[in-house]
Amino acid sequence: MSRPIITLTTDFGSADAYVAEMKAAIYSANTDVLIVDVSHEIPPQDVLGGSITLERAVRSFPAGTIHVAVIDPGVGTRRRLIRTSVCGQIIVCPDNGLITWTIRRHGGATFEEILWRPRVYSNTFHGRDVLAPFAAMIANGQIEAKMTQAIEAVALLDIAPAMTPGDARVIHVDHFGNCTTNVPAELVHVLSRVRVKGVEIGPLRQTYADVNRGEALAIVGSSGLLEVAVRDGSAAAELGLSVGDVIEVR
Amino acid sequence: MSRPIITLTTDFGSADAYVAEMKAAIYSANTDVLIVDVSHEIPPQDVLGGSITLERAVRSFPAGTIHVAVIDPGVGTRRRLIRTSVCGQIIVCPDNGLITWTIRRHGGATFEEILWRPRVYSNTFHGRDVLAPFAAMIANGQIEAKMTQAIEAVALLDIAPAMTPGDARVIHVDHFGNCTTNVPAELVHVLSRVRVKGVEIGPLRQTYADVNRGEALAIVGSSGLLEVAVRDGSAAAELGLSVGDVIEVR
Amino acid sequence: MSRPIITLTTDFGSADAYVAEMKAAIYSANTDVLIVDVSHEIPPQDVLGGSITLERAVRSFPAGTIHVAVIDPGVGTRRRLIRTSVCGQIIVCPDNGLITWTIRRHGGATFEEILWRPRVYSNTFHGRDVLAPFAAMIANGQIEAKMTQAIEAVALLDIAPAMTPGDARVIHVDHFGNCTTNVPAELVHVLSRVRVKGVEIGPLRQTYADVNRGEALAIVGSSGLLEVAVRDGSAAAELGLSVGDVIEVR
Repeated sequence: MSRPIITLTTDFGSADAYVAEMKAAIYSANTDVLIVDVSHEIPPQDVLGGSITLERAVRSFPAGTIHVAVIDPGVGTRRRLIRTSVCGQIIVCPDNGLITWTIRRHGGATFEEILWRPRVYSNTFHGRDVLAPFAAMIANGQIEAKMTQAIEAVALLDIAPAMTPGDARVIHVDHFGNCTTNVPAELVHVLSRVRVKGVEIGPLRQTYADVNRGEALAIVGSSGLLEVAVRDGSAAAELGLSVGDVIEVR
Repeated sequence: MSRPIITLTTDFGSADAYVAEMKAAIYSANTDVLIVDVSHEIPPQDVLGGSITLERAVRSFPAGTIHVAVIDPGVGTRRRLIRTSVCGQIIVCPDNGLITWTIRRHGGATFEEILWRPRVYSNTFHGRDVLAPFAAMIANGQIEAKMTQAIEAVALLDIAPAMTPGDARVIHVDHFGNCTTNVPAELVHVLSRVRVKGVEIGPLRQTYADVNRGEALAIVGSSGLLEVAVRDGSAAAELGLSVGDVIEVR
Repeated sequence: MSRPIITLTTDFGSADAYVAEMKAAIYSANTDVLIVDVSHEIPPQDVLGGSITLERAVRSFPAGTIHVAVIDPGVGTRRRLIRTSVCGQIIVCPDNGLITWTIRRHGGATFEEILWRPRVYSNTFHGRDVLAPFAAMIANGQIEAKMTQAIEAVALLDIAPAMTPGDARVIHVDHFGNCTTNVPAELVHVLSRVRVKGVEIGPLRQTYADVNRGEALAIVGSSGLLEVAVRDGSAAAELGLSVGDVIEVR
């Protein structure tokens, strides 16, 4: 029999006990859950970065997966906590834009405000005290109607897949220095040339090895978006690229 | 049926195979155990830091949890290995003070020396060769009387919860730069003012958002202790705080 | 009943969703698998470093364990993917030398090329799209004869256990700055003296505590190899050692 999966995406880092405290809250409710760390190295309070990484998790996990995302500079304020249903999966997170990239790429989502609160909880750690136990309750099939209420509008960040070549931007720099853009594969396959910071990096390639070591290339990356890379090197470092930079596609 | 939980707190870092080797020792004995990483980023040989982080795990996990803590500069010497029973949970670790903060905050502990040793083991990695398999044996209900012996006194660090405002110190700096002190909520709720390095940071706040972005505040953190933070910033960096610094509470 | 174990060794880092995407591929096939992270902090494209770390995992895990190793600068090229059977365990990885240190220390391996490919996969992430699901298929007992073919020769790196004292080299520097060499315990036990960068560090010691704090020592480490360490310090930093450096043993 398949076991429920709960993933965690946070900016908590790995030095402190915070992530383990969230896991304690989940396992206290159900020791059959599979907990998967997506990332705890989202830069502190980088909601956009968390949004991009969360979408990769949604894209990869099977239907029924529950994702907990906590990049939460507004903890303790009146910002809502929300449950989003999308792609047959569920995301619980603050209503601060974390779900943006998932919604932009997959659509068809419904939203609820999470009204449930535990009897005792802190004003500084809703990830542990509200979202983690609520995710475990979802896994346990314990959600009652009064614990949530449907809502229409949620907070969304000002970021979207490129509709035209002029919209192309770097949206993420990964561990290797590969730069993911907001340009979907469908758009980039018809384009002839990619330029970055005034430098021509040629046509779309099929694999990193289509260029020599140390050379830049444009490729469709593993999330179906145009990526700018340097073979066996860091495009971010070598081309001076960072999130928000314009990519020229013609 | 609930599965046994074993947590790991070490200074091994995440680059090497050491943590996986401990998990291999546990899973070799029982593949039903749930293993949770608390932290492997305790600074090398920082027993005090490990002690603070371990207490957060004990505070969060359910009764029956087994905690393995290995910050062990004395590995291979005559320092003892001990089993501590506290809060309905069990800690196995070197007898070097790692349990201090747990004992200081929760009390009511009993101690045993771990006499059991495997047939073959290294002089440099008792975490893998003694503590991890011993924790698995506890989970499996395989501990025999001759494997341990009760002891009265264990090594404790010179750190304690503040009994008076004059004792207030920073005991931990987290990933965000928030500075946890040794001042329990009970003590701080009656205090009117907090000063740090000569700077007044006002009365106790209820949430980070009670001050403007970039401003310092005093708040009861998620482990029930007074914490000095900067909203959307790092108190450690911006106030120049580190472990051991005095906090003035009046 | 024992559950199957799959370990992961990569250079993906922990900031991005890549590791979670591999786990999603495995759990999509079987939620009873135990997944263990060996390391995701192998330096980017450091096949030698990955090889050393992978061997430690093979040494530690029980028979039947499946190891997935992905340090893969050649992804998307014609380099093969291979399945290696060794020590009663299985390794799946690119045919780029990752298995070298395991083969050199344990021998008795057999090799197959992995011919199986999923219907759809990316040219940039075979770890997620081929190796992870293939490992899950092994765990599920779903490998058919046509999915692999026996091969004789695989890529091996130019590194081997020292046969004579003159071959002694540093092969790995760990998180603590301890320097592992390629000298097996059998060879070093008969030696009288170890010199590093012209500095005598004395005879083989039994434990770190055989020298004073801050002093260098030679010891047989937890993988059965000669190790150069500094008690409560970093041998790499204090002796200026790095991978490839010669160690003099007489």
